Amino acid sequence: MEAASANGEGARELTSDRQPIGRCRCLGPAPPRVGLAPPPGSRRCPRGRAGQPRAGEPGSYKAAGPAPLLLLLLLLLLLLLPAAMLRLLLLLPLLGAAGALPSPLRRRRSASLPVGPYLTRYLSQQIDHFGFDENRTFQQRYLVADQNWKKDNGPILFYTGNEGDITWFCNNTGFMWDVAEELNAMLVFAEHRYYGESLPFGNESFSDSKHLNYLTSEQALADFAVLVEYLKMTIAGARHSPVIAIGGSYGGMLAAWFRMKYPHVVVGALAASAPIWQFGDLVPCGTFFSIVTNDFKKSGTGCSESIRNSWDAINHLSSTDAGLQWLSNTFHLCSPLKNLQDAAVLKNWLSETWVNLAMVNYPYKADFLQPLPAWPIQEVCKFLKDPSLSEKLLLQNVFQAVNLYYNYTGEAPCLDVSQTATKSLGEMGWYYQACTEMVMPLCTDGVHDMFEPQKWDFDALSEECYRMWGVRPRLSWILSMYGGKNISSHSNIIFSNGGLDPWSAGGVTQNITNSLVAVVIPDGAHHLDLRSRNPLDPKSVQQARALEICLMKQWIEKARHSH
Amino acid sequence: MEAASANGEGARELTSDRQPIGRCRCLGPAPPRVGLAPPPGSRRCPRGRAGQPRAGEPGSYKAAGPAPLLLLLLLLLLLLLPAAMLRLLLLLPLLGAAGALPSPLRRRRSASLPVGPYLTRYLSQQIDHFGFDENRTFQQRYLVADQNWKKDNGPILFYTGNEGDITWFCNNTGFMWDVAEELNAMLVFAEHRYYGESLPFGNESFSDSKHLNYLTSEQALADFAVLVEYLKMTIAGARHSPVIAIGGSYGGMLAAWFRMKYPHVVVGALAASAPIWQFGDLVPCGTFFSIVTNDFKKSGTGCSESIRNSWDAINHLSSTDAGLQWLSNTFHLCSPLKNLQDAAVLKNWLSETWVNLAMVNYPYKADFLQPLPAWPIQEVCKFLKDPSLSEKLLLQNVFQAVNLYYNYTGEAPCLDVSQTATKSLGEMGWYYQACTEMVMPLCTDGVHDMFEPQKWDFDALSEECYRMWGVRPRLSWILSMYGGKNISSHSNIIFSNGGLDPWSAGGVTQNITNSLVAVVIPDGAHHLDLRSRNPLDPKSVQQARALEICLMKQWIEKARHSH
Repeated sequence: MEAASANGEGARELTSDRQPIGRCRCLGPAPPRVGLAPPPGSRRCPRGRAGQPRAGEPGSYKAAGPAPLLLLLLLLLLLLLPAAMLRLLLLLPLLGAAGALPSPLRRRRSASLPVGPYLTRYLSQQIDHFGFDENRTFQQRYLVADQNWKKDNGPILFYTGNEGDITWFCNNTGFMWDVAEELNAMLVFAEHRYYGESLPFGNESFSDSKHLNYLTSEQALADFAVLVEYLKMTIAGARHSPVIAIGGSYGGMLAAWFRMKYPHVVVGALAASAPIWQFGDLVPCGTFFSIVTNDFKKSGTGCSESIRNSWDAINHLSSTDAGLQWLSNTFHLCSPLKNLQDAAVLKNWLSETWVNLAMVNYPYKADFLQPLPAWPIQEVCKFLKDPSLSEKLLLQNVFQAVNLYYNYTGEAPCLDVSQTATKSLGEMGWYYQACTEMVMPLCTDGVHDMFEPQKWDFDALSEECYRMWGVRPRLSWILSMYGGKNISSHSNIIFSNGGLDPWSAGGVTQNITNSLVAVVIPDGAHHLDLRSRNPLDPKSVQQARALEICLMKQWIEKARHSH
Repeated sequence: MEAASANGEGARELTSDRQPIGRCRCLGPAPPRVGLAPPPGSRRCPRGRAGQPRAGEPGSYKAAGPAPLLLLLLLLLLLLLPAAMLRLLLLLPLLGAAGALPSPLRRRRSASLPVGPYLTRYLSQQIDHFGFDENRTFQQRYLVADQNWKKDNGPILFYTGNEGDITWFCNNTGFMWDVAEELNAMLVFAEHRYYGESLPFGNESFSDSKHLNYLTSEQALADFAVLVEYLKMTIAGARHSPVIAIGGSYGGMLAAWFRMKYPHVVVGALAASAPIWQFGDLVPCGTFFSIVTNDFKKSGTGCSESIRNSWDAINHLSSTDAGLQWLSNTFHLCSPLKNLQDAAVLKNWLSETWVNLAMVNYPYKADFLQPLPAWPIQEVCKFLKDPSLSEKLLLQNVFQAVNLYYNYTGEAPCLDVSQTATKSLGEMGWYYQACTEMVMPLCTDGVHDMFEPQKWDFDALSEECYRMWGVRPRLSWILSMYGGKNISSHSNIIFSNGGLDPWSAGGVTQNITNSLVAVVIPDGAHHLDLRSRNPLDPKSVQQARALEICLMKQWIEKARHSH
């Protein structure tokens, strides 16, 4: 292995394929931003061995990453919203806020999964950890794989489940399966309440704001804490097992927050692509979409500009019935557009598609929502080379681009802009969360990004949330609860970010202390590091994983010495 | 000043009057139990100047400490409970669990208070921070004194109000007033929800479990976090003010937990007489009452033995009507005892009296619930020198002892075992908390203590709580939430304990790390260190305060350097 590069400000930005790679050192050469001494017990790792593609390994590790919820949610919203004006105000913010985190709802279709056998278990949890009037319990599902576990207090890797069915995360977090043997670790995947089978009130869970009241990150973290303590109490040999939280996206936020709020339960956390700063005014609201734009800009000449020009073209055409008909035909829509409102649906569906592509811009062919080629944005951009074309020619090319995303196999008879609007519980749950705690300001200006300008409008969001759920979002609560950028007193958290991932806009991309470590994977999309090893992995993600493993080993070692 | 002594295990036990006192060093000579290097920025303090009695100072600083809730609660319970058997099972545990923390409800009578002017303010707080269905707010009261505050980000000492009217804590935490000038500090006293004026539902707040649902430590801490952030946002010059949490008893627990859960809000905490380990099986349930017993044993020959012998005497006499009559006459009871149930009330009233005395065994005359002399247990024990007396003579002496406590002025025409059973909101609130989160196992065996044997019976408590409030206590929740003894990853907390205080049984009395510091004040009763300076203060409490100030200055200094 070769040496990690690091930028001058203390970021742990890993090398791209073209840069030399050196030996792994947990504590890299870059000075941390806050000048703390190395924590007691910290040590340099020997040459890392994990995270390397195995020579001659068959290409069976094609596990797909998480599917984005963007489109599903957006369209669901569109169908539900009555006032077109409000819709236009809200769609974009909600699109990001409510939708762009991965959805568990779309299962992988056929790829062989790098997953070993696991047991499915259930634990009775208080529906309300923070109040006593509601004393009922529900069954939280969790999965356990202990075939590699060293029974004498070997470590536990604990996946902090996010907004979806936990089996989906189990199947799509190959990293944990890949490292279980090396770490002698038990794997536990805990399902987040209100998702998958872990429904506090069964089918009534989403019926109204009263039943939804216990869907918060705080309750989920309390579930995790109680579950870990239960496991350590009941599994022979696990009493002193060090537990490491691992999660991606919202699950990554939960992993980081779990370590912050329950450091007595987990010795550290790997928070992959966790936008914990996409709240309040911690980061500019426009960065998210400018990263999407850059992904397209870098992937082909004229690409982002073609998309930027497409909106006016659609607006112009949708002002007449003939234009709407032309658009419907050109995009092979299953249901023809009838009015401006439908045209807005089309535009948002397109926006979501571009965002989705940025999140899943992985370096190898993946069987995802739809089967996609390696580096799908590059493929898409092959259709979008000339932004100066007339509007109809331009939009025909845009169709070709999205058709690659939705119809790579060529089997779809038409494109359905509501095709993915599954009214699943997962979506409902996340949308409720985006309407309460998870308020992530997003915006576009059409200048630094390729999207139609859309300001962030909290008041409109609040009104819409109240209309839909009878609740109002609380803009600053997450900051009060989890500390915003003032988190330096915490320890043992790795924040990994993909340089291609729009969610890195709200991620921790600079070291905060020696034990709050930021890792940037320039070639990575949304938590690429949590995916299974793949022969086509860029070196940057290999090295990120090696560093992550190295740090986890340090945490485990230190925890072992404390007993 | 002279050097602090320390025991060999890393406790920071301060010298008694008879031991030599040396110069103040924040980081004392005792090695911490966990061998961490000194935190960055830590430094030795120069000679402390605060915490010394001022030469020639008039004895006007006679502020009373907190009054114990024991008796009030106990009797209230007795009056409410229907089943005598269950009552007997529950009284002792509840006595400790629900009652023994200080009550704000009994105001000091006449002592001049060491309190300067303050402003009374109110802040709208969410009734439910952890759910969105209940979106109403209530007015949280808080008091602000900024006459000593240095407006350019001078520190804020933030009292984490406990189970009572905040003005009472403001008046009885003279330490904060004493150090405000030296630290250039603003003082803020935040009222705990459901106490004093901070009632989420006004007069309905205690009407049922639904209205009581938001009375938890977590909600209270969230109030505090939101309040601090509001103050820093709205007070000119306070934006970067380091905030230190200070509290005693339950308020001390809150101060410690506040630092643990919201380290981004407070840079440190002084947790005085905070029994954060009086939960689950972290400490033996009998230590509390054995400390009470030791206080009496050390205060006079035959004292604790006399009390131990009194129970059988009462039991024997209360088995006949004539005996009950004799007891009623001898104890000058306002209402005569009629049956065994009344005799149980008498015994518990006596038990509470002994516990109260242990908590308020202060070294100077104090005007409290009742006016009390200096070292009141010594005074009481003067009546209890001969445990071998016949039962009637013994009990006549016991009467003299409690008469000193309840009738030191000689003005009471009779003793009313229910006289202090004020049905105030404060009591209701704390009893609810003891029936939900604050489950503190206490027990007696009559061997290691001077009380009648009483096992800890969680199931009985649970049944009784359900009957009274419709809620069930959760034994392990506080451990899951706040980490039990596994708190070494936190920092900047001082745990001070009085050697005479029964609550030190559940306190942190050994250093955990260099920044989780235990201070034991051998001559101190319940959070003596938080009281105003007094010329009769033992050196041990003077030195404890000097150490506390020294550490607070370090936290402030370090926080200043981080901006």
